[in-house]
Amino acid sequence: MLLDKITGPADLRRLDDASMSELATEIRERIVEVVNKNGGHLGSNLGAVELTLALHRVFDSPNDIILWDTGHQAYVHKLVTGRIQQFPSLRQPGGLSGYPSRAESPHDWIENSHASTVLSYAHGLAVAQELHGDPKRRIVAVIGDGSLTGGMAYEGLNNLGHSQSNVIVILNDNGRSYAPTVSRLGESLSRLRSNPTYRRQQARLERMLGEMPMVGGYLERGVEGAKAAIREILEPPAFFENLGVRYIGPFDGHDLPSLERALSNAAATEGPVVVHVMTQKGRGYGPAENDPIKNLHDLSELKDGSFTAAFSDAMLVEGARRPELVALTAAMPDSTGLLPFGQRFPGRLIDVGIAEQHAVTSAAGMAMGGLRPVFAVYSTFLTRAFDQVNLDVGLHRQPVVFVLDRAGITGDDGASHHGVLDMVLLTKVPDMTVFAPSSYGEVGQMLHDALDLCTGPAAIRFPKTMPPASTDGDVGSGPVGAAGS
Amino acid sequence: MLLDKITGPADLRRLDDASMSELATEIRERIVEVVNKNGGHLGSNLGAVELTLALHRVFDSPNDIILWDTGHQAYVHKLVTGRIQQFPSLRQPGGLSGYPSRAESPHDWIENSHASTVLSYAHGLAVAQELHGDPKRRIVAVIGDGSLTGGMAYEGLNNLGHSQSNVIVILNDNGRSYAPTVSRLGESLSRLRSNPTYRRQQARLERMLGEMPMVGGYLERGVEGAKAAIREILEPPAFFENLGVRYIGPFDGHDLPSLERALSNAAATEGPVVVHVMTQKGRGYGPAENDPIKNLHDLSELKDGSFTAAFSDAMLVEGARRPELVALTAAMPDSTGLLPFGQRFPGRLIDVGIAEQHAVTSAAGMAMGGLRPVFAVYSTFLTRAFDQVNLDVGLHRQPVVFVLDRAGITGDDGASHHGVLDMVLLTKVPDMTVFAPSSYGEVGQMLHDALDLCTGPAAIRFPKTMPPASTDGDVGSGPVGAAGS
Repeated sequence: MLLDKITGPADLRRLDDASMSELATEIRERIVEVVNKNGGHLGSNLGAVELTLALHRVFDSPNDIILWDTGHQAYVHKLVTGRIQQFPSLRQPGGLSGYPSRAESPHDWIENSHASTVLSYAHGLAVAQELHGDPKRRIVAVIGDGSLTGGMAYEGLNNLGHSQSNVIVILNDNGRSYAPTVSRLGESLSRLRSNPTYRRQQARLERMLGEMPMVGGYLERGVEGAKAAIREILEPPAFFENLGVRYIGPFDGHDLPSLERALSNAAATEGPVVVHVMTQKGRGYGPAENDPIKNLHDLSELKDGSFTAAFSDAMLVEGARRPELVALTAAMPDSTGLLPFGQRFPGRLIDVGIAEQHAVTSAAGMAMGGLRPVFAVYSTFLTRAFDQVNLDVGLHRQPVVFVLDRAGITGDDGASHHGVLDMVLLTKVPDMTVFAPSSYGEVGQMLHDALDLCTGPAAIRFPKTMPPASTDGDVGSGPVGAAGS
Repeated sequence: MLLDKITGPADLRRLDDASMSELATEIRERIVEVVNKNGGHLGSNLGAVELTLALHRVFDSPNDIILWDTGHQAYVHKLVTGRIQQFPSLRQPGGLSGYPSRAESPHDWIENSHASTVLSYAHGLAVAQELHGDPKRRIVAVIGDGSLTGGMAYEGLNNLGHSQSNVIVILNDNGRSYAPTVSRLGESLSRLRSNPTYRRQQARLERMLGEMPMVGGYLERGVEGAKAAIREILEPPAFFENLGVRYIGPFDGHDLPSLERALSNAAATEGPVVVHVMTQKGRGYGPAENDPIKNLHDLSELKDGSFTAAFSDAMLVEGARRPELVALTAAMPDSTGLLPFGQRFPGRLIDVGIAEQHAVTSAAGMAMGGLRPVFAVYSTFLTRAFDQVNLDVGLHRQPVVFVLDRAGITGDDGASHHGVLDMVLLTKVPDMTVFAPSSYGEVGQMLHDALDLCTGPAAIRFPKTMPPASTDGDVGSGPVGAAGS
């Protein structure tokens, strides 16, 4: 195996194109093998194989800084930065983290799994470089199109544009985050071309250009040149350039030599630049390539006999009873159990993208407008919108129901996934009522009560599964992976 | 006085242009008089006089829903919605709130003063309308250019574009929020034209158009038409249209008839539309027009003998001692006391716009890069970035110092300005050390200690002023305005 000889990024730079292609295949096989055994994120890692290899051949990590937004797509990065031997221990007690980890490797800088933060880290590191650092040290931030639906990514872009920092942003565009991306911006180019606004503008401009009579052989090139410029302007470049960030792309994210050329060009650029890379989630593994939602995020399924399944069922019951009931999700309609509700009641499931702040305040608006919104979200992610829960919902006494899945210790998903703060936060919110079911059977009754009895905000919080029967009465003393993960 | 005869918006619709102009003058005089006496936000209200009048003549509040982002610019709205008699009680105990207040009037929908939330409320209300409401009821959201630097506003825009909701967004662009706006997007058109990216694109396109030979009299119109289209594309419209939101403007925000025409046109539009209105903060009041920072936000000054002044001085001392010390602000360099530091140490004060989340995570990046960042922010606003404090700084054990001004009860600034949650939040953050000075003199020592002794995150929190000596030992029992306001 080529893979087993890779001790660090320098080894990658010694391989020829054919060997790199073979290595990519070996990496995919290794990841499928380990994730099938240990669980974890399959699709995003299979989609990032060539991109990661290109990054580590063009940039000199850890001197150059490679930052991964969300971080669940860093398995390939782990494999090529000296962690092949430990890779079978992925997500196991004492083993490799499912995310980058500063304790594991100097190649890992950030380990928070919450999305949309990476451009802000990059901005801070760039400021530090400019004031005190080595200007030859490059900063590279990899962010998915899904993460660009989070407002914090926009704050980061805006500040990169303002400061003109030397940061290379890799937009890893696979056309979906957890669920198909809710974003005009995240639309891939082909889909962009079918959107009405774009078509309207395009038609207007083609008409205008058509009305300009041209002369001789220059005509064709002139019109085509102008059209190309206009297309470029109407597509993602305009968005980024409006914010002061240069744009190059799109590039095929599975064509390694072309990717390396694009990254080398970007590395030679002054100021912030976005390199737009189109990748396919699940690439090279049939089951992950074919199913648009399942298998891409996590191999675990929504099982009967879980809090999530009980909530999913309860939403169908209440949805039929109350036409004013609507559900919100921040890009996770599947894992929060809302897909059946969305199928049964079209138009009443709203996916806002990875935008928890917007979800909460939009829910407040829905409640003011007479609806009964239920926002289902992992406990760890509600923390991102605490100010909105407290003021926009709480201070305004709006009857929004928050359903917090994965509350408590979540085990093998890593430190930033633990849902350990919801109780301390929720109990500070004006008028908040908190429900904590102790069995699957209570979820339906509690959802009913929250909708029936609460005139202000309410929350229902539950772990992924019932904790195992404890022999010593101390839930905290068991292995981390076993407690409610 | 015309003003004293206005009992509600319907009365406005009976006045002719000359009377409206007179009324605008009377409103400005009334606001200056009351704010000079009671304190409050002067510049933003003086800038919004004609805009507010136009809104209330074109739309039929409270049937049509007018939403104010941040809400400190709603004094004119209060005056024309039946609250003239109570206006002298603005910001007084038992008097009118300095923000919209649902308890005061059916014309007031949201009362949270935290920026960038309004598009999310509007989205939620629009969803409710579509599912159950009266489709003729219009939803209007007024947002400043400063608030557009907050990521949540982008989440809102993105979702309005995705859902194609019937929402009219008024972009009240006065070229600054608290401080001159940190945003490529917020740049006014004239400033946009001087930015290098824009000039580069413009030059390329003019060159391309110049290379296309034209025929006869059609030439001029053709080129000019194409240039106009290209200018439109390179300016704010492209940004909004990329997100699926239509754009019209810019309009002179002090020309009432033209504003009314623009709003009427927007009201007839299907789907989300941005009406870009250029206003001048402080309009019509010399002292507020002339000073770019002071007098625009609040008439209070940075006084000697305050916690803010002590912090401001301490930053000069530590800044001289530590070249790695940098300061961050989220659009409030003046009120947090950081202006002297910025003047003394150019390049070491970073204003990120109204983007607390970005500020915190960027500070984490700066610390990783070897700097010692100090983020000075009002206590109430740090809540917006709690997830970033907890994970991006805390989980990563980064030595970021948070300086929380206006901690505790802030009195006449309203419910959402109270800094009452920082202690409960900060004490949950890994490795956090909290300092709470009990006198102005302790601030400098504590800043020194936070920088000298803490290897992880630290916070220094203080109220605006020392609480008055209490006669009964119970700080909470005094009048609200007196306790640390």
